[in-house]
Amino acid sequence: MPNILAIDAGGTSTRAVIVDESGNCLGFGQSGGGNPISAGFGPALAALADATSMAQATSGPRLSSALIAMAGATSRMPRQELKERFIALGLHGELALESDLLAMFRSGTLASGGYALIAGTGSVAAHIEDGVLRSVSGGAGWLLGDGGSGFWIGHRVARAVVAYLDGRGAATALTDALLGELALVDTGEHAHGRRRVLLDLIDALYAMPPVELSRFAPLAFRATDDPVARDILAAAADELVGTLTAIRPADAVGPVVLGGSILGSGNPVASALTAALPGAHLIPARDGVVGAAVLALMRAGIRVDAGLQNRIAHGVTQFQEAAIGARA
Amino acid sequence: MPNILAIDAGGTSTRAVIVDESGNCLGFGQSGGGNPISAGFGPALAALADATSMAQATSGPRLSSALIAMAGATSRMPRQELKERFIALGLHGELALESDLLAMFRSGTLASGGYALIAGTGSVAAHIEDGVLRSVSGGAGWLLGDGGSGFWIGHRVARAVVAYLDGRGAATALTDALLGELALVDTGEHAHGRRRVLLDLIDALYAMPPVELSRFAPLAFRATDDPVARDILAAAADELVGTLTAIRPADAVGPVVLGGSILGSGNPVASALTAALPGAHLIPARDGVVGAAVLALMRAGIRVDAGLQNRIAHGVTQFQEAAIGARA
Repeated sequence: MPNILAIDAGGTSTRAVIVDESGNCLGFGQSGGGNPISAGFGPALAALADATSMAQATSGPRLSSALIAMAGATSRMPRQELKERFIALGLHGELALESDLLAMFRSGTLASGGYALIAGTGSVAAHIEDGVLRSVSGGAGWLLGDGGSGFWIGHRVARAVVAYLDGRGAATALTDALLGELALVDTGEHAHGRRRVLLDLIDALYAMPPVELSRFAPLAFRATDDPVARDILAAAADELVGTLTAIRPADAVGPVVLGGSILGSGNPVASALTAALPGAHLIPARDGVVGAAVLALMRAGIRVDAGLQNRIAHGVTQFQEAAIGARA
Repeated sequence: MPNILAIDAGGTSTRAVIVDESGNCLGFGQSGGGNPISAGFGPALAALADATSMAQATSGPRLSSALIAMAGATSRMPRQELKERFIALGLHGELALESDLLAMFRSGTLASGGYALIAGTGSVAAHIEDGVLRSVSGGAGWLLGDGGSGFWIGHRVARAVVAYLDGRGAATALTDALLGELALVDTGEHAHGRRRVLLDLIDALYAMPPVELSRFAPLAFRATDDPVARDILAAAADELVGTLTAIRPADAVGPVVLGGSILGSGNPVASALTAALPGAHLIPARDGVVGAAVLALMRAGIRVDAGLQNRIAHGVTQFQEAAIGARA
């Protein structure tokens, strides 16, 4: 029986699953950021190995093949070093690298072609044709793109509050929310012609790595009655529609798999996006590691159907719930 | 005769002038960034001392008083260490710190009150009343504010080109201009579903400190017939108007001193701003060190009139032209 390893290596977490040819989950492991671009090669490799070892605890050490899904990895990963590390971990067969976008697509659908739109910390859209990644839009990172992403929303939350405290912007419920989040108090004092709390807020925000402004995105989702927050989320939906339509013509066929925390079903961004794409077949993505396992099985020559895909998803969920239970 | 030292310590350059009580320039010096917030205290102090020593080469070492204009410095500068350094340089009298905004205002006008709007790398507006800084808007830095600034424009130039190359944005003359500036060539190749030149551009831009995107602002000014560039500059003017009107009511009296490279007279941003402020008395700022010298003379109890202010400005210009001539 093959023990097939599949890994989804993200910027903040890495999940590894070991499945048999029927999609039964034999082991599951989770670790920190496993993307060499954001974490560096050494720490990324350590995260990949940690998640794999954890999964091997229940499956046993033997690995018949491995597939790693990660952003932009195919060009930048030192493949030989990576292969050697996995051979040391028990790999006997092929090691494949795939796009995390394709894995996300395959977590939601088995269609040969279609689209994926992901909005987490960043945002990116992909067009898949005949099972291959054809074109990509977005994903240029917090400084240059990622419209509608968690960073983009959190950044606008921070700018809206700074603008209000500075007298340039409208009053907003986001002010109290953001000050509360950062444990800052407005004493009403002024210094150097500005509100003291504004100077404190500016100091606190510049002390963070810029991309971490994404942690303020939930404040916009929580401020449901606030016009400023509503405008930010409406603009985010516009940005995401723009990212998708850059690669998807209006008359496109094929499903659109939606992934990432910003596109959680029922939230205002997801609702606005759905309204802007009439007739599109929208499918919520599952954990990218499910799609990575689907890709790994396909690569091993196994015909994957919806039942097998669901079995993988079910197994991953069970392992994740058990891990949460063990921590509780 | 008093030898009065005045310094304008900016983020990228520091200018020092030594004047007598009639506004005659006895010495002038220039050095690198002298703002402790951006440069750190040690390098900032070294820049202040360098510019001062250079000015003393023609005036002689004795300094009867000194005034340093810098952003946000009054709260953050270790005053005792600063004072000791200037005593070592020949200072016998008082050392005063002042806002760079007030110095910029005083480089343009001797009115007791009014406004200053500065758009260089950053953007900020100030309300001056009875010779004192009353309130400030903007100046929150590249990540959180600085609407309409050089960074803001350069950032939008970069984002517009990334969006075009990504299929999300309109074609723009800024593309060739930016790729040329970074010595990148579009070979037409694709990689990972994207244009190769886009990946190269993203790598090049993330390799820069974000604030240095301000170096691309001139590309928008040069692309005079490009609609994308025109929209960026029109939006920049709107942002600057918003920054000013946050502290200046529509019926305000008192002049508005305009400073910084983005508000150079005759450029589209300055023209749009002028059109948006009908009836306002707009005065172009001179070098902030001229205003710093005006403040230093006032502080020494000397009555400064327009003739004396012009004499300082003339002297500073002569020294700067001589320095340029010496380098040529």
